[in-house]
Amino acid sequence: MRYLEDIQIGMRRELGSFTFTAELIKAFARQFDPQPFHLDEEAGRKSLFGGLAASGWHVASVCMKLLVADGQRAKAEAEARGEAPPVGGPSPGFRDLRWSRPVLAGDTLTYSSEVVSVRATATRPGWGILQSKNVAVNQRGEEVYSFLGSVFLPQRGDAA
Amino acid sequence: MRYLEDIQIGMRRELGSFTFTAELIKAFARQFDPQPFHLDEEAGRKSLFGGLAASGWHVASVCMKLLVADGQRAKAEAEARGEAPPVGGPSPGFRDLRWSRPVLAGDTLTYSSEVVSVRATATRPGWGILQSKNVAVNQRGEEVYSFLGSVFLPQRGDAA
Repeated sequence: MRYLEDIQIGMRRELGSFTFTAELIKAFARQFDPQPFHLDEEAGRKSLFGGLAASGWHVASVCMKLLVADGQRAKAEAEARGEAPPVGGPSPGFRDLRWSRPVLAGDTLTYSSEVVSVRATATRPGWGILQSKNVAVNQRGEEVYSFLGSVFLPQRGDAA
Repeated sequence: MRYLEDIQIGMRRELGSFTFTAELIKAFARQFDPQPFHLDEEAGRKSLFGGLAASGWHVASVCMKLLVADGQRAKAEAEARGEAPPVGGPSPGFRDLRWSRPVLAGDTLTYSSEVVSVRATATRPGWGILQSKNVAVNQRGEEVYSFLGSVFLPQRGDAA
């Protein structure tokens, strides 16, 4: 969690890794995406995925989990520097989400986030919009997931 | 779940409704999006959302849940007509996801899906790509969520 003024294009954060076990894949699918290829190994093998595959929304939700944890780390780093941590804003949405390859049981994804644009907003004084490209690669280095996310960030302004 | 040949632009399916209770909002947030405004009423009131707000990924995952249930209904309808139900394919991703308004505790969203394009694919013989605009409106009729989704669908071909 940072202020708008601290952000530069090209800044990159490593968000961490997550292993999609068969158990976790099935548990998410039962709740939110109960399609056969997300629930059953044999159905997965017979599908275009070629194996028990994680729901794309599971891959996306884990990315959010890691983004939040990274924000908490950034907040702790700001506090360690003696700065008042900013309050993060909500996201207005995102663009161009791609599930470019299957995520199969046992795959470990490593997520990262890179700033692609940053600007002040006309409609919300004191706030700006940060756009970042979030990417996940599997244990073979293949990109499996990406999206361009936007998030409101406060300007430091008088608070600095 | 239908075959590519059965799909026409403008076809619309009502996917059903879902009420985001405070309990469900917090349970999803604890697992995947533990930001204060998704976990705590007071933190929500102080945020740009103005109340305890559902994670956007929760709003999206519920949409997937309803899309799957609708696919199962369509499959049952096909079977009732004596047709062999097609096996649905995976999604290559989507575009232009928007969380246009907050979803607050107690809000009931109604989801729908409308076909915006349909075409055969050059790279996967026997399959095509269906693009649909998926939308959720709240109990006041305000649009809160939308995205353009793509999904692979089999062509009926010889199976008919």
